[in-house]
Amino acid sequence: MLKKKDRYNVAVVGATGAVGNEMIATLEERDFPVGRLRLFASEMSEGRNLKFRDADIPVEILNEDSFIGIDIALFSAGGERSRIWAPVAARSGCVVIDNSSQWRMDPEVPLVVPEVNPHDLEWHKGIIANPNCSTIQMVVVLKPIYDAAGIRRVVVTTFQSVSGTGKKAMDELMQQTVAILNFKPVEKNVYPHQIAFNCIPHIDSFLENDYTKEEMKMVNETRKILGDDSIGITATTVRVPVFRCHSESLNIETDKKITPNEVRAVLSAAPGLVVYDAPEKNISPLATDVADRHETYVGRIREDESTENAINMWIVADNLRKGAALNAVQIAEKLVEMA
Amino acid sequence: MLKKKDRYNVAVVGATGAVGNEMIATLEERDFPVGRLRLFASEMSEGRNLKFRDADIPVEILNEDSFIGIDIALFSAGGERSRIWAPVAARSGCVVIDNSSQWRMDPEVPLVVPEVNPHDLEWHKGIIANPNCSTIQMVVVLKPIYDAAGIRRVVVTTFQSVSGTGKKAMDELMQQTVAILNFKPVEKNVYPHQIAFNCIPHIDSFLENDYTKEEMKMVNETRKILGDDSIGITATTVRVPVFRCHSESLNIETDKKITPNEVRAVLSAAPGLVVYDAPEKNISPLATDVADRHETYVGRIREDESTENAINMWIVADNLRKGAALNAVQIAEKLVEMA
Repeated sequence: MLKKKDRYNVAVVGATGAVGNEMIATLEERDFPVGRLRLFASEMSEGRNLKFRDADIPVEILNEDSFIGIDIALFSAGGERSRIWAPVAARSGCVVIDNSSQWRMDPEVPLVVPEVNPHDLEWHKGIIANPNCSTIQMVVVLKPIYDAAGIRRVVVTTFQSVSGTGKKAMDELMQQTVAILNFKPVEKNVYPHQIAFNCIPHIDSFLENDYTKEEMKMVNETRKILGDDSIGITATTVRVPVFRCHSESLNIETDKKITPNEVRAVLSAAPGLVVYDAPEKNISPLATDVADRHETYVGRIREDESTENAINMWIVADNLRKGAALNAVQIAEKLVEMA
Repeated sequence: MLKKKDRYNVAVVGATGAVGNEMIATLEERDFPVGRLRLFASEMSEGRNLKFRDADIPVEILNEDSFIGIDIALFSAGGERSRIWAPVAARSGCVVIDNSSQWRMDPEVPLVVPEVNPHDLEWHKGIIANPNCSTIQMVVVLKPIYDAAGIRRVVVTTFQSVSGTGKKAMDELMQQTVAILNFKPVEKNVYPHQIAFNCIPHIDSFLENDYTKEEMKMVNETRKILGDDSIGITATTVRVPVFRCHSESLNIETDKKITPNEVRAVLSAAPGLVVYDAPEKNISPLATDVADRHETYVGRIREDESTENAINMWIVADNLRKGAALNAVQIAEKLVEMA
């Protein structure tokens, strides 16, 4: 458990990546009580400095002693580095908040979205997992509906931005777009197919059941976070030529009847959500509007008349913020609150 | 009914639009037995010529006598022109195949996808309606599954290209993209929101139930074409920054159990479909691959374990071809066959 202090020494592992950058910005913006900040990345970034408040902080390479004196370590450096280094950090006495998929389904590791299951922070053993970006924004919306009407089944289709893959993918979308506008050949390095002016129904690798890992994360992580394995969830995850923010089309079957107006009321009263739903004024959540926002935006709320007790909606969140860096920092804030 | 002839005089109304252009190209490519071809458009296009085979054909303005001597009139000039001119054409003795939404739900007008309900052509009274683009590709896929296992409910989310809106929307996507790459302000004329690098969950105008017209077309047209009002359908239609081809994420609940392999077999044997589904080889349908193709491509076929008897899939078709011009020409071909 985190010990109560005025200021906490924080490490960011994977500091130079798309999410690492957002972690540093989020710590600063939310005025997290940072004592010392240490930044870690791979050899490629050695010698670089990154700004935090008014200081230039050097990017260091990890070693066995890196976490001595650190209270909280935010990891976003891929599953393999988390597998090796998160236990090292935990043994050094710091609390790890890990953004990779490495520890998420480990029964010894809580998987937490602070608005949804903060109580799970009570039983952590040094490592806390941050859920997948597409899962986080969905469970923030599902939780108040689950409490109000129960959830029987969710059918979700995602529209995920390239920043979910990282900086290289953002560059690839830009370069391919420029190439197409100049009638030049398109180079593919990050994705197996052209992403500019295209939609790729394929995120992460395929599993034996023909679902992708990304799709099964949405199923398994959602059940773990909501603490209910009886919820039926099926996902189709799609990459779209958008730089930032993930959008999701949700069809939710509830146990009890709940009207669109009741859904609006329940979601408006819940933390971390903005109901942004006035079709007659052309107001619906859009990736371009939600970038840098901390909340998940919900619109297109309407009754699904094709079955009993079902609701459609369209939700958008910043995948780098709420989908990753912000959720990790919010976990740290909750730990501080509980200390 | 069409009278048997060696060659048929054909009119294309709305000849200079995105779909009109494709109608002319499709008539030529499929070697439709065209006798005389007459092209009609609004005053703005008067004086232009369009190529058909080796001839330059003048674009004319419609009048009461325009359809005299015409056997088949392909309309794609918007609902209002169809409302006024389709009955004029029908009274002149020609068969109208109308691509607008004006006549689709009229009980006196058959709504036809030739692979699905060619028998409905038998009772036309001079006007035959071409379904909405997003509906056509879906029913081509639903029909063989409906015949094999029955369909209880469909949850569909679309990824629709800007060419569905027309040429001006294609220009707007291009211009906005160029503006963004040059750090210039984005101008919005066709859509209420930026479409470049964005997804807009809003196609056509909103109805009282908070669904869009496009979404309710998918519900009502599908039931009419399949001749079964008991099928539950719910749709979320989304515009994406793609120039051509519509993609759709389908979740289909069947009456009887049907496995993914059985679905593949049933779809492979059905007309107008290509099963394009080998995840391990990165083969899934993509908008960029399906442009100009005549078939609807189906991939990501997998069992949905969140409920009994359900299947997920991802389908892509060229919205200007199968979704509009090709389906209209295929109706004309079927009429010729039946003559």
